Amino acid sequence: MIRLFVPDPLAAGAPIAPGPEASRYLIAVMRLAIGSEIQLFNGRDGEWRATVVEADKRRCRLTVGSLIRPQETGPDLTLVVALVKRGRLETIVEKAAELGAARVQPVLTRRTNADRANVDRLQAIAIEAAEQTGRMDPPRILEPVKLAKLLDGWEAGRRLMFCDETGGPPALDALAGKGGGPWAILIGPEGGFDPEEIARLRGMEAVLPVSLGPRILRADTAAISAMTLWQAAVGDWTGRG
Amino acid sequence: MIRLFVPDPLAAGAPIAPGPEASRYLIAVMRLAIGSEIQLFNGRDGEWRATVVEADKRRCRLTVGSLIRPQETGPDLTLVVALVKRGRLETIVEKAAELGAARVQPVLTRRTNADRANVDRLQAIAIEAAEQTGRMDPPRILEPVKLAKLLDGWEAGRRLMFCDETGGPPALDALAGKGGGPWAILIGPEGGFDPEEIARLRGMEAVLPVSLGPRILRADTAAISAMTLWQAAVGDWTGRG
Repeated sequence: MIRLFVPDPLAAGAPIAPGPEASRYLIAVMRLAIGSEIQLFNGRDGEWRATVVEADKRRCRLTVGSLIRPQETGPDLTLVVALVKRGRLETIVEKAAELGAARVQPVLTRRTNADRANVDRLQAIAIEAAEQTGRMDPPRILEPVKLAKLLDGWEAGRRLMFCDETGGPPALDALAGKGGGPWAILIGPEGGFDPEEIARLRGMEAVLPVSLGPRILRADTAAISAMTLWQAAVGDWTGRG
Repeated sequence: MIRLFVPDPLAAGAPIAPGPEASRYLIAVMRLAIGSEIQLFNGRDGEWRATVVEADKRRCRLTVGSLIRPQETGPDLTLVVALVKRGRLETIVEKAAELGAARVQPVLTRRTNADRANVDRLQAIAIEAAEQTGRMDPPRILEPVKLAKLLDGWEAGRRLMFCDETGGPPALDALAGKGGGPWAILIGPEGGFDPEEIARLRGMEAVLPVSLGPRILRADTAAISAMTLWQAAVGDWTGRG
């Protein structure tokens, strides 16, 4: 069944008027008609059944029915990722949604060339991926910041799994016995981190340096592998939570 | 330094004449000149230094210098993957090279719509990814076969990690204590496996059904996550050899 994210509050009987793009998708692309059922979520109120009550190509109206699942929130995991080429960054955001990150924080490092990201577009990609992957809480895409500034104000109690291309213990060994709670994963730019950045990271108490195997990984692969290992070791893939 | 795969035998002093496409890449794109050094590998003879001795845009010639590393062979892992859309299959092949699979076996399942793959193009993608990821043994891309036929002749002693969307133990729990040796990973089509296929797989002694977490993953994400967990649990990311 189609899952659609809407910004509106969701409650039984509430009327929902999706915007023009969503209306076109539902009626012209997915060919829904009056009486068709879809699933709605808004990141706050859980997942609801809704029925199409007006089916014009430009204006679709829905009425919210019953609650399917109450709101669930995934692990408190931030993916901190150096700004990489647009296509690769979009892939990383899509995969962060599939793999259960709570938010994506793009960062500028010393070896990052790009200095901006289209946050609105990345947020739209995250929402679409959340619709398809079945989660109720699309990851939030944060405005890019400088890595040094992010580390200056690093949140107390949030651990940081640092994917260190210059070496470290295997990620599963490093994560063994570590619990859940607030975490972040740091993925560097294609050219790697600068030695001063590496030294600073290694000196921080919150930081857990890990290795992602013997081969050189592209940034998107490293991000997916790191999120997978984190979820499998301490996140919601453990079957213990 | 540039790494180039060549089909030729490699030994000190051997002359190498890359084809027109590789020559153009080295001279016109990477701007190598006479005296420039690159690394060569062929999947059999290890990794070698080589020096440019002729630098015409259409015809580059190299002479092999000294051995850098003797031939290394990665784990004996076959990625068995249902034929999915071309772009996604190309991504999967690229990631199989980065994540150390020995070969990729495309399969036709009951819910697979496609019935062919451009094996030559996929092999070229695997070689290019091997050049960039630093490995000496590009994965071999096999001709597509029907899943049922592959299972009929399943190789004795090769275990099969079956990523079962209908449920199973967490992959890390299932892999705990399992050793290396010949393995395969099976990734299904976007629409999932047919119930009869699932029943057959679950009934095979070689098969280890595993779950990849609570969210729905696209085929490329599932392939990357599965290879990552396998490498981290029993492959060459364990740090145990």
